[in-house]
Amino acid sequence: MTSSYSIAFEPMNIAVDCGENETLLDCARRHRIRLATSCGGQGTCASCLIQFTEGSPPQAIKAEKDIISPARLAQGWRRACLVRPIGDSTVFVPPRSTAAPVRTHVEGNAADIDIDPPVKTVSFELSPPNMEDTVADDKRLHDALKERDEECTGFDPALLRSLSRDLRGWDWRGWVATFKGQVIAAGSVDQRPLGLAVDLGTTNISGILVDLKTGSTLAEKGMENPQTSLGADLITYASVIRRKPEAAEQLRHLSVTALNQLAADLCLECQEKPERIVEATIAGNTMMHHLLLGLPVHQLAMSPFVPALSRASDIKARDLGLEFAPGGNVHLLPNIAGFVGGDHIATLLAAILPSDKPAIIMDIGTNTEISLVDGEHVTSVSCPSGPAFEGGHLSHGMRAAEGAIELVRIKGDEVHFETIGDGVPVGICGSGVLDAVAQLQATGICNERGQIQDGQCRVQGDPDKREFVLATKEEAGGNEITLTQDDIRAVQLAKGAIRAATDQLLEKTGFAEKDLGQVIIAGAFGNYIDVGSALAIGMLPDLPYRKFAQIGNAAGEGARQVLLSNKIRAEARDLARRADYFELAGAKSFMKTFGARINFPEKPLRKSSE
Amino acid sequence: MTSSYSIAFEPMNIAVDCGENETLLDCARRHRIRLATSCGGQGTCASCLIQFTEGSPPQAIKAEKDIISPARLAQGWRRACLVRPIGDSTVFVPPRSTAAPVRTHVEGNAADIDIDPPVKTVSFELSPPNMEDTVADDKRLHDALKERDEECTGFDPALLRSLSRDLRGWDWRGWVATFKGQVIAAGSVDQRPLGLAVDLGTTNISGILVDLKTGSTLAEKGMENPQTSLGADLITYASVIRRKPEAAEQLRHLSVTALNQLAADLCLECQEKPERIVEATIAGNTMMHHLLLGLPVHQLAMSPFVPALSRASDIKARDLGLEFAPGGNVHLLPNIAGFVGGDHIATLLAAILPSDKPAIIMDIGTNTEISLVDGEHVTSVSCPSGPAFEGGHLSHGMRAAEGAIELVRIKGDEVHFETIGDGVPVGICGSGVLDAVAQLQATGICNERGQIQDGQCRVQGDPDKREFVLATKEEAGGNEITLTQDDIRAVQLAKGAIRAATDQLLEKTGFAEKDLGQVIIAGAFGNYIDVGSALAIGMLPDLPYRKFAQIGNAAGEGARQVLLSNKIRAEARDLARRADYFELAGAKSFMKTFGARINFPEKPLRKSSE
Repeated sequence: MTSSYSIAFEPMNIAVDCGENETLLDCARRHRIRLATSCGGQGTCASCLIQFTEGSPPQAIKAEKDIISPARLAQGWRRACLVRPIGDSTVFVPPRSTAAPVRTHVEGNAADIDIDPPVKTVSFELSPPNMEDTVADDKRLHDALKERDEECTGFDPALLRSLSRDLRGWDWRGWVATFKGQVIAAGSVDQRPLGLAVDLGTTNISGILVDLKTGSTLAEKGMENPQTSLGADLITYASVIRRKPEAAEQLRHLSVTALNQLAADLCLECQEKPERIVEATIAGNTMMHHLLLGLPVHQLAMSPFVPALSRASDIKARDLGLEFAPGGNVHLLPNIAGFVGGDHIATLLAAILPSDKPAIIMDIGTNTEISLVDGEHVTSVSCPSGPAFEGGHLSHGMRAAEGAIELVRIKGDEVHFETIGDGVPVGICGSGVLDAVAQLQATGICNERGQIQDGQCRVQGDPDKREFVLATKEEAGGNEITLTQDDIRAVQLAKGAIRAATDQLLEKTGFAEKDLGQVIIAGAFGNYIDVGSALAIGMLPDLPYRKFAQIGNAAGEGARQVLLSNKIRAEARDLARRADYFELAGAKSFMKTFGARINFPEKPLRKSSE
Repeated sequence: MTSSYSIAFEPMNIAVDCGENETLLDCARRHRIRLATSCGGQGTCASCLIQFTEGSPPQAIKAEKDIISPARLAQGWRRACLVRPIGDSTVFVPPRSTAAPVRTHVEGNAADIDIDPPVKTVSFELSPPNMEDTVADDKRLHDALKERDEECTGFDPALLRSLSRDLRGWDWRGWVATFKGQVIAAGSVDQRPLGLAVDLGTTNISGILVDLKTGSTLAEKGMENPQTSLGADLITYASVIRRKPEAAEQLRHLSVTALNQLAADLCLECQEKPERIVEATIAGNTMMHHLLLGLPVHQLAMSPFVPALSRASDIKARDLGLEFAPGGNVHLLPNIAGFVGGDHIATLLAAILPSDKPAIIMDIGTNTEISLVDGEHVTSVSCPSGPAFEGGHLSHGMRAAEGAIELVRIKGDEVHFETIGDGVPVGICGSGVLDAVAQLQATGICNERGQIQDGQCRVQGDPDKREFVLATKEEAGGNEITLTQDDIRAVQLAKGAIRAATDQLLEKTGFAEKDLGQVIIAGAFGNYIDVGSALAIGMLPDLPYRKFAQIGNAAGEGARQVLLSNKIRAEARDLARRADYFELAGAKSFMKTFGARINFPEKPLRKSSE
């Protein structure tokens, strides 16, 4: 016999039933209450901490005791992915454990480009049929387009279902949108054709809605990728799917739902309708791209990491479940390799590079993609860099959301920090962690090997469990925020991998750091980091500060350009074809370089003005 | 309060419940028991007669008394579309009232053509990826095709979902099928690519399954179109849909289900699988074509009878709900006009015409399409010709199924008839009706105006309700089979329309009957008629017997050729473009000609040897 309990989630103020043998995380998922999980509920991260505020919490198990202090265990804190309620309860979900809307970055560097969209809009005005002129509707429109020297090889079958009625309703006047000669959509004289450019990231999705005829931007918006409810990085997805194949369909569905929601939100902002979207361009990493298309992903995460699909592809929005124009097109940017996807191509397109010197462009995330561009030559590598920079797998890590410590400065005994929204700190996000580690190292609180030194101010715990108190109980509303030895180690591994990959890329292309004209850091995280801190911990090439540029969400901007310009779309294809990818997992020297890059550089922190 | 009754249908031996206010026809439909209805259950035909054999039949209403004799009413005969059971009953469904499998014709005149299918099959053998060669699966295949100078613009997204796994399972060897440069399907070395050619008729559907690489025919099969359960002709469909818009979706679904069933049956015959079908070509009349594609049809049945789509179209099998290869293509032949569809084009393609003289090709059915071909010039007309030739709307009419009288000869007092299957007659089908009317006229039993003469042998009934007894009770197992005055009138209207349309076509093109080199009669019905009888009643141009040819199901053969030959597919497009359609409903002289063609010609029956 099984029974179930009533669980009230706070502050959401939602009461739901939870099965006797169900974990709180599974229960929350079933009821569409989103909790943060970096590991996809496998019990390997600690991002889903919650507190029982009413009702008896069950006995903590070892995996909880390992992570949660006895005091906090006594206060009712548990891990949602492990705990199974034993009675009716109220559970508090702190901000750092919600997968709530987060700060994203959609601005990019919008460039002036020549508006020449691959999906072309053509106006028409037809004479209505009569008994002497019984030409079919499709041929009537076809002949009118031909007369204006417009290509018309056929009509999308879904469009035809409504076209005959519409033509009569529109008094035989309006516009059609054609793609590669096929008429894919139509509208009346007072409707406009829309285009949507999407950066489909592992953590965040952002979109730009444009008028496809004029090229003007109508709305921009970012949202968290709901796929993160099943995991926070690409390898997690592949492993979840390996164990539970139906998760692939679940992930695909989450992605499609998010894109439909994003389109609806963008349209709402400018009184438009998603069914007017005649084309969307999507720049995603290879995993997101494959999941969206329903392609197999297990080979992506297994040597030799081969994508099922690398070339640019066009697919009907309806085939993906996207509720755009019935015959609307979705253009997916090409991928370079299993871990260098269309989002990186889009970033390369949007970046303005020095013409005389080689440049490096890097997208930092749970996976980091790095390309060296030298004129026509493009060489790319990638390396896993873990979720630390997105606040994942850290004892007090969180996304860049309200209450996250995003900046840290240490002077003597004093710790100065700033939080997003300027409120009480609830955790620390990627840019904050980077700062904190740089400061600990600069002040000597940890040594060059990353070890927290004993006897320092705000250092507590046993020798093998030392931690630095970033915010005291008083500062943080009762819950101390610390950076542990393990957290510092996670940052060291991430920055070591990024730096080693950069080293390998330079070696492969025969350049030295000093040859580089510029180092461009793209992506939302890259936009918020203090380059000085990143240099201090040795994450970036040892170059003068002025050689670095942070360009924010360049992938979205690249997707916009691919939406609006035939020339840039061709460039994207060409770039993918030209790019020379080399697999670091196959380079014997990588592990050696990586080992040498884990420690911090010996020199002191630079000044930001250098 | 409502109650329901138990109704046993015989000879099907199925007992079902029937609601208190439900007609037997609605009840049968709900339980998927198929009864014949020419009118779609509107109560205007009499094809759904059934007999109560147990339980009380309800009182007959006027519409039943008009059609059923008092004796038969007393025996429990009623009209399924009108009768509502009043208690538990057993109901006998005679063969003529079942929409059961019927005799169809799929042979056609299979011609030798050059095998050059638009969907091309290309073999491949790839080297597997490794750490030094991480090229994506799609690009690996693309490069191999390019090397062999084969076009490859992209991959169908549905194919890609299984391709990566398949390539590995097939040891990187096999074939791909490409269409217009896109790779749409793939197979291992021991699988073969299949093609399906379909004649999608209002009454029957027939299919030819071919090996798309060699062009050889693997299986052929015909089946009744289940759409007839909602009506038997195009105008009925349009009117049903006008009253009940959801019927369009129901009709589409029936059509899709039938095509899937046909494909499965054909594959079963040769140990193949429908998912190997990489392309299907479909030749249907404009209404069937529009219903299958989900296009609006009300404008088809309304002046000026304009199709939504006339040009040839290619659509993914999956978009239609057809369970073929995931990326498989469906090619729909172009339409000429609202009542001259792709089936007629297919017939024109398959017919071998005299090169020196104009020829007429006609498809006779509930709608008759007629084209005059004079070298490059094609002129087409169409006319409604009712269901009489398919056994519909006649007092004892039935489809060309087991027990149907299909041949009639009268000598003095003797009536000689033959039935399909040589058993006891249960009704009369199209070719039998044509014969019977010709014989009645030749023997003077009816006069040239079609009136049955009194005092003749086997003539019975009141002056205004005279009928001729084709088979007596003794001959027909208890149920007399007659031809009534109304039945003869129905044949006169049908043949008058066909002949008048032919007259108009000749007048429009400036030819006389004697100029014609040949008159080709296509279609299953046309294949079974006695041309002598058709000439005798004045249905066909007054030409020597040798000028006529009966080519059977030429539409299926045309569809096969379009499947196997790029050249013939191009010809089909060209034919549709060249064809000059004129609308008889708009020609003032048509009604006059029609009136003059209703009577029978005065001269006596020719001999078949003339």
